[in-house]
Amino acid sequence: MDNWAVEKHDSFMYGFNVKEVLYEKKSRIQEIKVVATERYGNILFLDNCVMLSEKWEFIYHEMIAHPVLFTHPSPKKVLIIGGGDGGTLREVLKHPNIRSVDMVEIDEDVVNVCKEYFPAVSKQINHSKANILIEDGIKFVANKKNEYDIILIDSSDPVGPAEGLFNSTFYKNAMESLRDDGILVAQSESPFFEMSYFKNAVNNIKKAFPISMTYTAFIPDYPFGLWSFTMGSKLYDPLHNFNKDNFEKYKLATKYYNQNIHFAAFSLPNFIKDVIK
Amino acid sequence: MDNWAVEKHDSFMYGFNVKEVLYEKKSRIQEIKVVATERYGNILFLDNCVMLSEKWEFIYHEMIAHPVLFTHPSPKKVLIIGGGDGGTLREVLKHPNIRSVDMVEIDEDVVNVCKEYFPAVSKQINHSKANILIEDGIKFVANKKNEYDIILIDSSDPVGPAEGLFNSTFYKNAMESLRDDGILVAQSESPFFEMSYFKNAVNNIKKAFPISMTYTAFIPDYPFGLWSFTMGSKLYDPLHNFNKDNFEKYKLATKYYNQNIHFAAFSLPNFIKDVIK
Repeated sequence: MDNWAVEKHDSFMYGFNVKEVLYEKKSRIQEIKVVATERYGNILFLDNCVMLSEKWEFIYHEMIAHPVLFTHPSPKKVLIIGGGDGGTLREVLKHPNIRSVDMVEIDEDVVNVCKEYFPAVSKQINHSKANILIEDGIKFVANKKNEYDIILIDSSDPVGPAEGLFNSTFYKNAMESLRDDGILVAQSESPFFEMSYFKNAVNNIKKAFPISMTYTAFIPDYPFGLWSFTMGSKLYDPLHNFNKDNFEKYKLATKYYNQNIHFAAFSLPNFIKDVIK
Repeated sequence: MDNWAVEKHDSFMYGFNVKEVLYEKKSRIQEIKVVATERYGNILFLDNCVMLSEKWEFIYHEMIAHPVLFTHPSPKKVLIIGGGDGGTLREVLKHPNIRSVDMVEIDEDVVNVCKEYFPAVSKQINHSKANILIEDGIKFVANKKNEYDIILIDSSDPVGPAEGLFNSTFYKNAMESLRDDGILVAQSESPFFEMSYFKNAVNNIKKAFPISMTYTAFIPDYPFGLWSFTMGSKLYDPLHNFNKDNFEKYKLATKYYNQNIHFAAFSLPNFIKDVIK
């Protein structure tokens, strides 16, 4: 008998053929579900939305981390908001210039479930440079000033627990948590799917930072397969400040990101440019 | 009651919430189905696979047509294989230098159904420069020599009626149908979905032409939203021969394609480069 794990919206649905449901439980924060599939490995759902598959998670995690880490000339201290699966942390720690990473995840169960069912994603959770904090990222950021070189907002959608990670107050506080030449990058939703979420995220980052730039990546785990990220920066620009020296020195083993992709990802189709201009 | 029109594969499915089924009938060639949706307009299915939605069809049609038409310095005579919906023809005819377009579609019912349910897509079907032929494209191409500046292969997947449009013999015949500086472009399937179809299409074009280059576009109508196209060219290269003069002169009203996208689309992620190197 067919068993499908689906992400279902009013207008659109998609789903994966499931071999076995490995985990299904409500945490203090949200519904967590892990299914095993033949072709995409294990897949994590939070509140019935796909967060990642073992097969394709590398794309989201490489693309939230490397463009910003190769834009800042010497990032040392990094903050990740969300990212409980550990994939963003894993990519950040590939950069040898990083000295410490604070990862602030609101749901401890996500961290523990991912340790068990996504070991290749969460493998750096216990790294000596990583400091895992189970806290509300919104409150955390409100209390930090002039501390981080880079902040990565690795959140779920702006409904439910992550809603406050998309508004102006949060981005303003995040800006103040950054040093004078700091850069923030946030997943900024899909221009194909919920255009209003996308527009809202981009506009709020634009209001908070002198430089803001949106880029895209193919993320097959998410509805319609296109996802966006937006950088808010105080000084550096990803197109003019690409750190070719570090890029060539580090020779990171990436499966999606490369030097051409670094630049190409910022080339937006007309219909997306029109929405955010 | 919910009514969903789905494209279902062994491992993955996706579908759209349907207001009304407008058409459902087997032609001489294939199962044709048109559904109306709230958010994506009418959607065409052939043999239960999504071909296009009114909302997003512009991406596929712009991206199969404009990169090649702005690579050839003076395209005059064009052949479209497939493309019965008329969308590729519509984009080709935006270029004023085109003198005639032969469109060879195997299934007359697709043309007629699209005239009725996708009028904005098929609106140039009766254009004076267009010559619509209801024939098998494989046989058609085998009988033409040294005739076209550009050939566009706008086919369905390499199972069923379109299977013969992906093999070496067909690409070799297509090459001989082109003039000495001609260029072919084919939809070459998804590197996310059926990697073997993608690899096969790209490799066969590579074998037939001295220059071959693969590019991608976000196509939300198709599984996982990433699609590829491959150019096979006798002389011109899309990155070195981009016709900036014509691009600036024509000022085409495109919603996806632009000058940056022309170049960015050829920047491939590492995992795709590895498959076709």
